[in-house]
Amino acid sequence: MSDTTRQGFAAIDYGRRVAMIQPRLPLGNGCDALLFTDLVDVRWLTGFTGSNGWAVVRHDEVIVGTDGRYGDRARVETAPAGATVFAETTRAGLHERLISSLVGARRVALDPATTSQAEWSRLAADVSLEPTSSLVTLQRQIKDGAEIERMHAAANAADAALIEVESMLFATVDNPVSEADIRDELEYRMRRHGADDRSYETIVASGPEHAARPHHDATRRVIVEGDTVIIDVGALVDGYHSDMTRSYVIGEPTAQQRELYALVEAAQQAGIEALSAGVTAKAVDSACRNLFIEAGYGDWYLHATGHGVGLVIHESPFHSQASDEGLVAGNVVTVEPGLYRVGFGGFRIEDLLVVTETGSRPLTHTPPRPFSS
Amino acid sequence: MSDTTRQGFAAIDYGRRVAMIQPRLPLGNGCDALLFTDLVDVRWLTGFTGSNGWAVVRHDEVIVGTDGRYGDRARVETAPAGATVFAETTRAGLHERLISSLVGARRVALDPATTSQAEWSRLAADVSLEPTSSLVTLQRQIKDGAEIERMHAAANAADAALIEVESMLFATVDNPVSEADIRDELEYRMRRHGADDRSYETIVASGPEHAARPHHDATRRVIVEGDTVIIDVGALVDGYHSDMTRSYVIGEPTAQQRELYALVEAAQQAGIEALSAGVTAKAVDSACRNLFIEAGYGDWYLHATGHGVGLVIHESPFHSQASDEGLVAGNVVTVEPGLYRVGFGGFRIEDLLVVTETGSRPLTHTPPRPFSS
Repeated sequence: MSDTTRQGFAAIDYGRRVAMIQPRLPLGNGCDALLFTDLVDVRWLTGFTGSNGWAVVRHDEVIVGTDGRYGDRARVETAPAGATVFAETTRAGLHERLISSLVGARRVALDPATTSQAEWSRLAADVSLEPTSSLVTLQRQIKDGAEIERMHAAANAADAALIEVESMLFATVDNPVSEADIRDELEYRMRRHGADDRSYETIVASGPEHAARPHHDATRRVIVEGDTVIIDVGALVDGYHSDMTRSYVIGEPTAQQRELYALVEAAQQAGIEALSAGVTAKAVDSACRNLFIEAGYGDWYLHATGHGVGLVIHESPFHSQASDEGLVAGNVVTVEPGLYRVGFGGFRIEDLLVVTETGSRPLTHTPPRPFSS
Repeated sequence: MSDTTRQGFAAIDYGRRVAMIQPRLPLGNGCDALLFTDLVDVRWLTGFTGSNGWAVVRHDEVIVGTDGRYGDRARVETAPAGATVFAETTRAGLHERLISSLVGARRVALDPATTSQAEWSRLAADVSLEPTSSLVTLQRQIKDGAEIERMHAAANAADAALIEVESMLFATVDNPVSEADIRDELEYRMRRHGADDRSYETIVASGPEHAARPHHDATRRVIVEGDTVIIDVGALVDGYHSDMTRSYVIGEPTAQQRELYALVEAAQQAGIEALSAGVTAKAVDSACRNLFIEAGYGDWYLHATGHGVGLVIHESPFHSQASDEGLVAGNVVTVEPGLYRVGFGGFRIEDLLVVTETGSRPLTHTPPRPFSS
């Protein structure tokens, strides 16, 4: 209910979402009721933002259950979705409400990946459950304009913060700063620039060891001349995430630093150029990876090329060799190749882009500024 | 592997933890292997801090499985626990490793509350599973000296930040600040005072509506004269949380504001005095609640009186009327009564305390300063 922070965004059309899901009942597997236990699914479908609850979709109604802390919030937030809200003070009472919300259903579709075994067993005592991938989780991959607007605002906040903090980074030789100092400034400044929060724990990885780890936690290590530095930073706006990485060399870059930075830059460009509705997520990974392999650096590339972003920071589609997903217009994805080697450090360049029918357009806009001079 | 931030703390004795759990095999229900899928359990037992993994305990070995991102980290972190580490690049490979780690076990204990139905089904195809409350989750409630040291450092960081920020709060009449402004300063300053991070999203709830909600998210509402303000703030140090709440009146307090603040203060004092090894968690709740009921404000008290804190911010024991838990020395718990009413606003006072044989000692130390004058 952060009403006063949300001015200016188009309303998310929850009614349309319900109307997209409801007519699909009964499902092919005979399910005539859908139960959502993943809070992100519940939020996407109904607008409810509390930290405990579930949603049931029947052919003629949507029901949200939560605990006593969130009753008022749920009623306000889910009104546009037309949901009926039950708020119960005890766990047993909430379970009873869920069972009564499913009365008359022949079979209930439920995602076993987002439901605990304990919860599944309790439910199975009273209703017939069918393990089914969540329709909402699939639908969530395609963003509408209102969602992209929020992700763009998040990306803008991260852009503004990073551009401010780069000067601190390049000044470290005279005014020493640690990885944690840079992280703290970024997270503080993103909020000053309109973010509700960080999107994830900001990565600031510097020097021959830390920058060689794709998932480094910022430490109190002081950044020094000669370091490569990777900064991976995103913001959160109204539940939506952004994601971006820029890489730097402190002081005068060596020939190898220049060469490898240019290689990562070229790989990222190739990945972005591969991006379009109709291509496979795997092809985006290949576009980056092949450049590294051809240059003899295939084994310096330690991760996949990107992932979908939305109400969660990592979601389908995943740009990896193991993926068989196809891209569609409205996917919002990262393209983030990198090279890493202990002793050298590393570089990663990442942007967040909306997939379109003919290509893509970026949501992140921080101009690359790898070298101070 | 935040080595450079952890100087000065006593090492956590993971070997002792393994030695505490291992001799309990086989369990009474016949289980001769324990599988931990909750990452907090895995961390408590083995020291592994990655975001994906599991631990298996057999009578003569501890095995940690994770993905390729975390292999090096897991090997460094779990060496003191004597764990064998497997890092696999594919999900299927990691599952195979888990099955092979359980070979020869007659029956495997696994907590159904922290395991998804999908994971449970995959495992049940190959091994005999027994739903069992996690031994580690139970043991985690009793903190040792090294853990309390970290929680105290976290509490100190929050104390230092809040004491600094109170002056901003009281100056709001001349220099307006919003709830979000106060939150942002607190989260930034806790890190400046040694925290790795916030413990949870800082609550800043002001005025007749927001302060009446126990779980309010900070908004851009500007704090004004006459407001009650609740600030609920904690820090994170080496994975351990702190938790504290202070309440304020902006400007000259009314008679009702003074009366209700004093009532919450008295209730909190009663709760703290009730705290000791050997008492029930319910008795601590009653000590606070009865004071409110006697004063005619029982229905202004919207939540339970407190909870355990450790590697997670909310854990057993819970001070509530529904609890049948008993307190033991080494529990670290909050005592946090409050009164809330739309139109009035609210007050909550919360401290974090270590339960001892004869009473308790506080880890949070911010002097209450409810009124500016």
